[in-house]
Amino acid sequence: MRWTLPPQQVPQAWFNVLARMDHQLEPPLHPATRQPIGPDDLAPLFPMALIAQEVSNEPWVDIPGEVIDVLRLWRPTPLVRAHRLEQALLTPARIYYKDESVSPAGSHKPNTAVPQAYYNKVEGIKRLATETGAGQWGSALAFASALFDLECKVYMVRASYDQKPYRRVMMETWGASVVPSPVDDPSHPGSLGTAISDAVADAASRQDTHYSLGSVLNHVLLHQSVIGLEAREQLQLAGESLPDVVIGSCGGGSNLGGIALPFVRDETVRLVAVEPASCPTLTAGSFEYDFGDTAGLTPLLAMYTLGHDFVPPSIHAGGLRYHGDSPIISSLVKSGRMEAIAYPQGKVFDAAVQFARTQGSIPAPETSHAIRAVIDEALAAKEEGLERCILFSYSGHGLLDLSAYDDYLHGRLIQES
Amino acid sequence: MRWTLPPQQVPQAWFNVLARMDHQLEPPLHPATRQPIGPDDLAPLFPMALIAQEVSNEPWVDIPGEVIDVLRLWRPTPLVRAHRLEQALLTPARIYYKDESVSPAGSHKPNTAVPQAYYNKVEGIKRLATETGAGQWGSALAFASALFDLECKVYMVRASYDQKPYRRVMMETWGASVVPSPVDDPSHPGSLGTAISDAVADAASRQDTHYSLGSVLNHVLLHQSVIGLEAREQLQLAGESLPDVVIGSCGGGSNLGGIALPFVRDETVRLVAVEPASCPTLTAGSFEYDFGDTAGLTPLLAMYTLGHDFVPPSIHAGGLRYHGDSPIISSLVKSGRMEAIAYPQGKVFDAAVQFARTQGSIPAPETSHAIRAVIDEALAAKEEGLERCILFSYSGHGLLDLSAYDDYLHGRLIQES
Repeated sequence: MRWTLPPQQVPQAWFNVLARMDHQLEPPLHPATRQPIGPDDLAPLFPMALIAQEVSNEPWVDIPGEVIDVLRLWRPTPLVRAHRLEQALLTPARIYYKDESVSPAGSHKPNTAVPQAYYNKVEGIKRLATETGAGQWGSALAFASALFDLECKVYMVRASYDQKPYRRVMMETWGASVVPSPVDDPSHPGSLGTAISDAVADAASRQDTHYSLGSVLNHVLLHQSVIGLEAREQLQLAGESLPDVVIGSCGGGSNLGGIALPFVRDETVRLVAVEPASCPTLTAGSFEYDFGDTAGLTPLLAMYTLGHDFVPPSIHAGGLRYHGDSPIISSLVKSGRMEAIAYPQGKVFDAAVQFARTQGSIPAPETSHAIRAVIDEALAAKEEGLERCILFSYSGHGLLDLSAYDDYLHGRLIQES
Repeated sequence: MRWTLPPQQVPQAWFNVLARMDHQLEPPLHPATRQPIGPDDLAPLFPMALIAQEVSNEPWVDIPGEVIDVLRLWRPTPLVRAHRLEQALLTPARIYYKDESVSPAGSHKPNTAVPQAYYNKVEGIKRLATETGAGQWGSALAFASALFDLECKVYMVRASYDQKPYRRVMMETWGASVVPSPVDDPSHPGSLGTAISDAVADAASRQDTHYSLGSVLNHVLLHQSVIGLEAREQLQLAGESLPDVVIGSCGGGSNLGGIALPFVRDETVRLVAVEPASCPTLTAGSFEYDFGDTAGLTPLLAMYTLGHDFVPPSIHAGGLRYHGDSPIISSLVKSGRMEAIAYPQGKVFDAAVQFARTQGSIPAPETSHAIRAVIDEALAAKEEGLERCILFSYSGHGLLDLSAYDDYLHGRLIQES
């Protein structure tokens, strides 16, 4: 069963968890002075509206009408009960997922790409520069840029650029220009860290250009709150009060934040981050100030990190291959409000294929991390003989990741140590 | 704006146009005797329920509950008003599309794959054999077979098998077995005709196996009527009475039939078939009895055909590369009730990219044929200074066809004569 809402019911305001957290986040520091940064330090990269949102303490932030008009192309997204998966697992748990794969770019990423493009357009910016790993974020910003008539330049991690040509084509279809990163070393496979460095350097060097980031930052998680806000309403329609547990895959934290943060004040609701065992930021990293990129161009953020020079193995969930994590998510894990768990990709693909063969939809490798944890939660409920209401974010489809399924089905997944 | 309906409003019955046509179709003939075939001739290939539907004259055929349960995974599909495309065209026309791309397989094809799998399952069949060209149909049947626990063997046109490995992987993810066709000649690029021959031969040789066809036949168009039935209801919600014109791309005719046939008795509504200039069955073929496949194993159908040995050029809209056409669609074109128009693929991709950059979604090459015709209708309305309500079927997304966009964007589309 699916619960849909009419386009008129897209949320009118974003939920700002910063106004609802028990303690304040530690401030970002300037990369050179190591002093807290101010708005002026960020102005060369971001429009003032986003800089204001980054530090806002208002619990609700109005969504501009022009942004809502675009979100309505696919929002509200459906909430789906995974009946067939439940039946296959013989579990008493009730499993719901918020289907963010229905956006034109196929993931939750346009939820923030659209307002980012909008605020830049309003401030007179003509061109956006960004990085992308597997391509989900670059696709989303290319889509949003097309709708607001902005130029879009995407620095794509070279390994993905070479291995996933269709993501490049998708971005080009929306009119974006895509180049492999690092731009100055054609023999380097690249990483999200190098691609961020390239995009920041581009934006800093041109008056008409801003930088756009698809995760990690507070304003990105703010924009993603529409996921959880809609899900709360749809769970009511489904006859549920609150979920027992909310689960999301976590790379930089935007998908997880989107589904989980609107439940942060509901103390009975467990919040669970799922990450790859080969890039275990939350489960094995340390909480400290670190750069967001490899070259050390970005502000220092207080977060869990594996070190800004950490290069994770080439697992297929490229969107989760990030050394750091959102300061908001990091803070929630540090305080114990949020749990974190890590899985190797073989177990993740087992879950992905079980999902595809029961529910029909083929999930992205990133999303499949959450599905692995959901299945294990549902099996635990069965073991304990307890009902349990599980909510997760189906953050994206896997239709541009089928080479990963090919590797899995034919025994060619890389073995992680 | 989008108009959604809750899953409870999936149609409870299919609309059977055979009960509403002005004259009867000419009967299929046995390939050997050239006499009208009876149910027994078809029993080795199809379950009796589908054979009965093929010749039913009941105007409404109940949809089984187990089929509705599966259709509800994605149906009712949204009806979308293409405001942004209208604005880009500066047209007074109102453009609506029925978004069939939201199914797990990404097209309208599961609408018939699901009931076909169901009826075979009920009759004790263990295994289905079918053909696929570009892969849309094979994907749909692989998906449906997974949900009803049937084995599925797909004979895929060799040229597509080699060029579109991701479609194969999609089918394998759902558990299907996929081989290139023709199976007995590895140097032959294959065609839908050869693949049908392979699949029919497979099904005819095994007691536990039936054959499944994704278009052309009456029962397939019957199952696709859910598209137009839902669209009628959603247009009312949008404040429209009837559309002025209904447009669909046409290969074998199932997508077009699905959107158009529920409007066949509304005489003010123009019905338009759009096909590729390089495979112009309706616009340049002749109406006569012909085989559905290359080897002459299928019954002879009275239809427009380019000849069963016609091999169309390798355009990207593989789903439209068929020498024949649905007898229902052929009859409507012959009688003048339906118009037909053909476009070369360069003009089709111009329309596809304009759609992607305004509405956000990237259409399948097949679907883009309809979009080309829609844009030309909307521009004609502007020229004439007339309002016009246009409805078309957005039959599938192009996320597994991005290599076609790559060719288009970089000037590598083949030139058609």
